[in-house]
Amino acid sequence: MDAKTVTFTAIPDLPLVGPGDDLAAILIDAFERAGIVPQDRDVLVIAQKVVSKAEGRYVDLADIVPSPRARELAAAVDKDPRLVEVILSEAREVVRFRPGVLVVEHRLGFVMANAGVDQSNIEHPQGSERVLLLPEDPDAACAALKAQLDACFGVEIGVVINDSFGRPWRNGVVGVALGAAGLPALLDLVGAPDLFGRAMRVTEVAVADELAAAASLLMGQAGEGLPIVLVRGLSWDAPPRNAAALLRSKERDLFR
Amino acid sequence: MDAKTVTFTAIPDLPLVGPGDDLAAILIDAFERAGIVPQDRDVLVIAQKVVSKAEGRYVDLADIVPSPRARELAAAVDKDPRLVEVILSEAREVVRFRPGVLVVEHRLGFVMANAGVDQSNIEHPQGSERVLLLPEDPDAACAALKAQLDACFGVEIGVVINDSFGRPWRNGVVGVALGAAGLPALLDLVGAPDLFGRAMRVTEVAVADELAAAASLLMGQAGEGLPIVLVRGLSWDAPPRNAAALLRSKERDLFR
Repeated sequence: MDAKTVTFTAIPDLPLVGPGDDLAAILIDAFERAGIVPQDRDVLVIAQKVVSKAEGRYVDLADIVPSPRARELAAAVDKDPRLVEVILSEAREVVRFRPGVLVVEHRLGFVMANAGVDQSNIEHPQGSERVLLLPEDPDAACAALKAQLDACFGVEIGVVINDSFGRPWRNGVVGVALGAAGLPALLDLVGAPDLFGRAMRVTEVAVADELAAAASLLMGQAGEGLPIVLVRGLSWDAPPRNAAALLRSKERDLFR
Repeated sequence: MDAKTVTFTAIPDLPLVGPGDDLAAILIDAFERAGIVPQDRDVLVIAQKVVSKAEGRYVDLADIVPSPRARELAAAVDKDPRLVEVILSEAREVVRFRPGVLVVEHRLGFVMANAGVDQSNIEHPQGSERVLLLPEDPDAACAALKAQLDACFGVEIGVVINDSFGRPWRNGVVGVALGAAGLPALLDLVGAPDLFGRAMRVTEVAVADELAAAASLLMGQAGEGLPIVLVRGLSWDAPPRNAAALLRSKERDLFR
């Protein structure tokens, strides 16, 4: 990545998105209303929740019967056993838990709280207790959106789906990339010399996570309805890598 | 934080910084050359290395006699015993190690590789084996720079010092805030309702880390010499909190 000025613009007036909606068409409309024409190497960062809603990834807790394991874990973490059942159904394994906290490895490999199952910023039809799961396949969703937007505008853009994760050791959540297409989500700097000709020790930069964090600054956390951010001014030479490249395997990890 | 467009601009042509240099004066010169006049609520993100160099935080490995403990650990992590001695002198405790990896809690509370002791992008005078430590007190350095820049330009800016950290579970480094002044490094959203009136579950956002990550996209990792990024377009109502607020206490941490 090389740039002098990079601009992040939150796309205003996005309508509420519902199951089955054509997200690419919604984005194209929103660009048009905002007078924005995507250019080559623009990166579109999309909040996970919007993609999940378009995919209809809702589960109604009223339909869930918790397993004995979910009931036991729910008591330990002080959460609704039905919610814990949904979390476990989205998880490969439980990584850590204590009252109020349930960290799992999501089936897609993300180590995160509650497998990303979310109860906030969701429309609740009368009587429903809906929760929202992560998108089915965020990298594939990015690739599909990129293909549709590229075709519409005749450009080559990058697409990132972001979410907010807590971290070990540090307070507060930060934006993190769940999916990416069309850009090097992980940028390999092996062998690049530093200013003084010494070989670099830092070898890989999580570019998509940095973009996800930056876009999160504009999206806000309190539901202002700014889930789409266009990033302009980045450039890169490296080939695209999707967000799966950001996942460290359990075998190579020191903290599981 | 609330914003529609946020612009990140890397300040060009910063001279190499050396021990004892007046960093505020250097920044003021660089702004002038670039035709940039800081405004209220601009945030200046400064790479750790520049601050460390101005503070003269060099150690020459030739002057270091490693302790038996450093020699033992150096063998286990496959690093120079003198470098490990310096790392240990900057650390409260060793968190994890394996060949090639040494994660410690820095004396300031950061859990990070090698206590931030760095061998890349450092000028090496003939015969020296210098390494560079983190700034003495990054929050204080931010406050001092903010005071000088605010006074010069008659504005109220934010200042962040960033570095690149690896993370558990995910590949690649991301920009992280070591210090902050003049902005809410950690933004508390307790009680803010979501779009549909439901109380938020996410309560704190690590705003300074998101800024640090975003600025890192422009700074690059390969020593392009763009260690200063000006962020324009953010706004906030919350009172300032420095980067120490981002540190989770060991007692509240599930991963130590």
